[in-house]
Amino acid sequence: MSFFERLKTEASAEWRAYTEHPFTNGLADGSLAEAAFRHYLVQDYLFLIEFARAYALSVYKSPKLADMREAAAGLSTILDIEMNLHVKLCAGWGLSPSDLEQTPPAVEMLAYTRYVLDAGMRGDLLALKVALAPCVIGYAEIATRLASRPEARAATNPYRVWIAEYAGAPYQEVAVKARAHLESLADLYATPAREAELIAIFKEATRLEADFWEMGWRAGQHVE
Amino acid sequence: MSFFERLKTEASAEWRAYTEHPFTNGLADGSLAEAAFRHYLVQDYLFLIEFARAYALSVYKSPKLADMREAAAGLSTILDIEMNLHVKLCAGWGLSPSDLEQTPPAVEMLAYTRYVLDAGMRGDLLALKVALAPCVIGYAEIATRLASRPEARAATNPYRVWIAEYAGAPYQEVAVKARAHLESLADLYATPAREAELIAIFKEATRLEADFWEMGWRAGQHVE
Amino acid sequence: MSFFERLKTEASAEWRAYTEHPFTNGLADGSLAEAAFRHYLVQDYLFLIEFARAYALSVYKSPKLADMREAAAGLSTILDIEMNLHVKLCAGWGLSPSDLEQTPPAVEMLAYTRYVLDAGMRGDLLALKVALAPCVIGYAEIATRLASRPEARAATNPYRVWIAEYAGAPYQEVAVKARAHLESLADLYATPAREAELIAIFKEATRLEADFWEMGWRAGQHVE
Amino acid sequence: MSFFERLKTEASAEWRAYTEHPFTNGLADGSLAEAAFRHYLVQDYLFLIEFARAYALSVYKSPKLADMREAAAGLSTILDIEMNLHVKLCAGWGLSPSDLEQTPPAVEMLAYTRYVLDAGMRGDLLALKVALAPCVIGYAEIATRLASRPEARAATNPYRVWIAEYAGAPYQEVAVKARAHLESLADLYATPAREAELIAIFKEATRLEADFWEMGWRAGQHVE
Repeated sequence: MSFFERLKTEASAEWRAYTEHPFTNGLADGSLAEAAFRHYLVQDYLFLIEFARAYALSVYKSPKLADMREAAAGLSTILDIEMNLHVKLCAGWGLSPSDLEQTPPAVEMLAYTRYVLDAGMRGDLLALKVALAPCVIGYAEIATRLASRPEARAATNPYRVWIAEYAGAPYQEVAVKARAHLESLADLYATPAREAELIAIFKEATRLEADFWEMGWRAGQHVE
Repeated sequence: MSFFERLKTEASAEWRAYTEHPFTNGLADGSLAEAAFRHYLVQDYLFLIEFARAYALSVYKSPKLADMREAAAGLSTILDIEMNLHVKLCAGWGLSPSDLEQTPPAVEMLAYTRYVLDAGMRGDLLALKVALAPCVIGYAEIATRLASRPEARAATNPYRVWIAEYAGAPYQEVAVKARAHLESLADLYATPAREAELIAIFKEATRLEADFWEMGWRAGQHVE
Repeated sequence: MSFFERLKTEASAEWRAYTEHPFTNGLADGSLAEAAFRHYLVQDYLFLIEFARAYALSVYKSPKLADMREAAAGLSTILDIEMNLHVKLCAGWGLSPSDLEQTPPAVEMLAYTRYVLDAGMRGDLLALKVALAPCVIGYAEIATRLASRPEARAATNPYRVWIAEYAGAPYQEVAVKARAHLESLADLYATPAREAELIAIFKEATRLEADFWEMGWRAGQHVE
Repeated sequence: MSFFERLKTEASAEWRAYTEHPFTNGLADGSLAEAAFRHYLVQDYLFLIEFARAYALSVYKSPKLADMREAAAGLSTILDIEMNLHVKLCAGWGLSPSDLEQTPPAVEMLAYTRYVLDAGMRGDLLALKVALAPCVIGYAEIATRLASRPEARAATNPYRVWIAEYAGAPYQEVAVKARAHLESLADLYATPAREAELIAIFKEATRLEADFWEMGWRAGQHVE
């Protein structure tokens, strides 16, 4: 079993709560409250900024030049491509860049991003990548599952663009590469004795990702 | 007006929501649900561990030997005195050290501690001390207010020990020193142009402290 | 007087020892021993790797998204452009990529790069940029001075390519931007009381840059 | 073979150059130039300040509370005991506290301390402890060897106090504990695939320790 499969197996309850959260099913069938999605979108923008900082940290932490280049490419992708896509997606939902910047950060966004940054600064590059994995690799898995449902692509589904973006080939390839990099780091740096610590980081990060969906979900329930 | 007074004035809504949270009034009159206090106590133990890491970080960050010694003394106080007091206090509430260590971290504990650690690593020693101030200085202010109420010292108030600890001279002196150190750092490192950033850190940390009370408060409501 | 001019004025002895080091004059008139230049080139390659880490750190440290983008662009320039130019330049001097990677780091390279990384991690973004300034901005100033001497462009000068690269418009523009960014950070984060610390960092980094030339210079004297 | 023995075996040339440096033999027989020792003493004081920062960093980096307490105890020892002993030792050599603080840092001191701090921040706690080992454990080994020579304790040997301090039971016990802690971290975090990186850190740190002796040694030769 690969290292990532072992992480998912050990955190199977957390992984399922995250990847099959009602928020995601609401995206698939279009039933998610729009207020929920808007709240999520704004916080996800703030999240991306911290995520870029985490990738920058992974450049600083890299033991080899090849790891640095890999992390720096990820950083460019976030700052130069993903954030622009996000701004465009938000505009389609009536959210301006100043809406994005002026919204106060939600505690769930703070908890997840700062947990990842601290786990990475405290430990080595592998610890950082384990903390990032639920997001980078998890989104690809979630979007693939959602895209397999017929309603996901229905013209009436307001979330079809979001699903298509993460289920599409470019993002799936990002996730495949991230997973291969994680495996190669685990080959170098994971020991049986250390695995409990890495699993704890993975579980925590996965739980905090589920809380992130939950934050959006609740915003939908408050309104409607 | 001192730097700390300016921070409190700018964050007055957050400061009041934190220092006058129902949880604190429940401590003063003894009406707080015991389940609320127990949940708080356990998370506060996990909090202290991260707080010790933040003090260690402030040693690393110190520009001068005198700052290092001040921070290192704080670190020793947490690890050698406060944590032992905490374990003793918990024992009085039927919580064993293994209860403390085996409880999963609450999202509110993660959010606050990691926010402080990241704000400190990202910025300079002043940024770190501003992020720590709501806790270090705020607890002294809260306990002083609570201790002034007659019910606070009643033999029937189960929270009188907690209040007495933070209202007592040793902790009050810790807070006075922390405040003086903050002022001297602000004299050196705060600029008018930078003040908006420092206020933002202070507001966020204060808000996350209020969330910490809220976490305990909710635990009391679930049960009773 | 601009902030950078003040730094140079306060560190005028160190700045002159660095920017007018015999190594640089040996580049201008072509009289530098080739062994000196080869030793410099190899260590400068190792230097660039750490320099990229420092730029990654400045992304992590950035208080604003605009600062992050500026730093990330610098990181890409180093990893995707400068390092390749360097490999090409080295090839012209008979140094293969494996020569570059297998050479042990010189103490002067370690001292300078780790001093910068630690000054940056310990302090804020301004401290990091002050530590980087002697290199980023200093190289532009040195190359401009060298390029103004007629021998610098003589076909017989083996160092004309190096001089032209740093005296050329693309690198000069990098330095102009870095200087403008430094000034804007100083406007926000420098205080009169703090200036002594920033000057100390600038002096130290400048002295370590002069040591870097000296390291190359000595390698030339050992051989010839 | 223990982890530390493997490190020493792999770095045997560097270890010998460090632990048997002429400076150390000059301490043993009292032949070391006094100027050499004075220069060393002053730089060693500056070194201790950074060393305390490295111990603070190891508190921040610790994955477990027990590791934190171990590192915090080391930090207290440096700040509260070692530095005071050092100031006293310096006074015996006519060096006042202000001499210590006003001397500019030597490049060898900067290189070693910043290398350790960066290796530790970049990697995990094991990487940091490997970088610290040549100093913490090496000094105990060196002093034991020197103390076994009859001249080391002669009343005429001006360096007998220094030797006795590091050969004495309290420091030897510090080193024994540091070594046991290193072994337990290696059991958890070292993998065969990772060992090359850890050996590289150990070699580099050992080489930089030898450079530190060399710095003192050269100061003695300039004068006499």
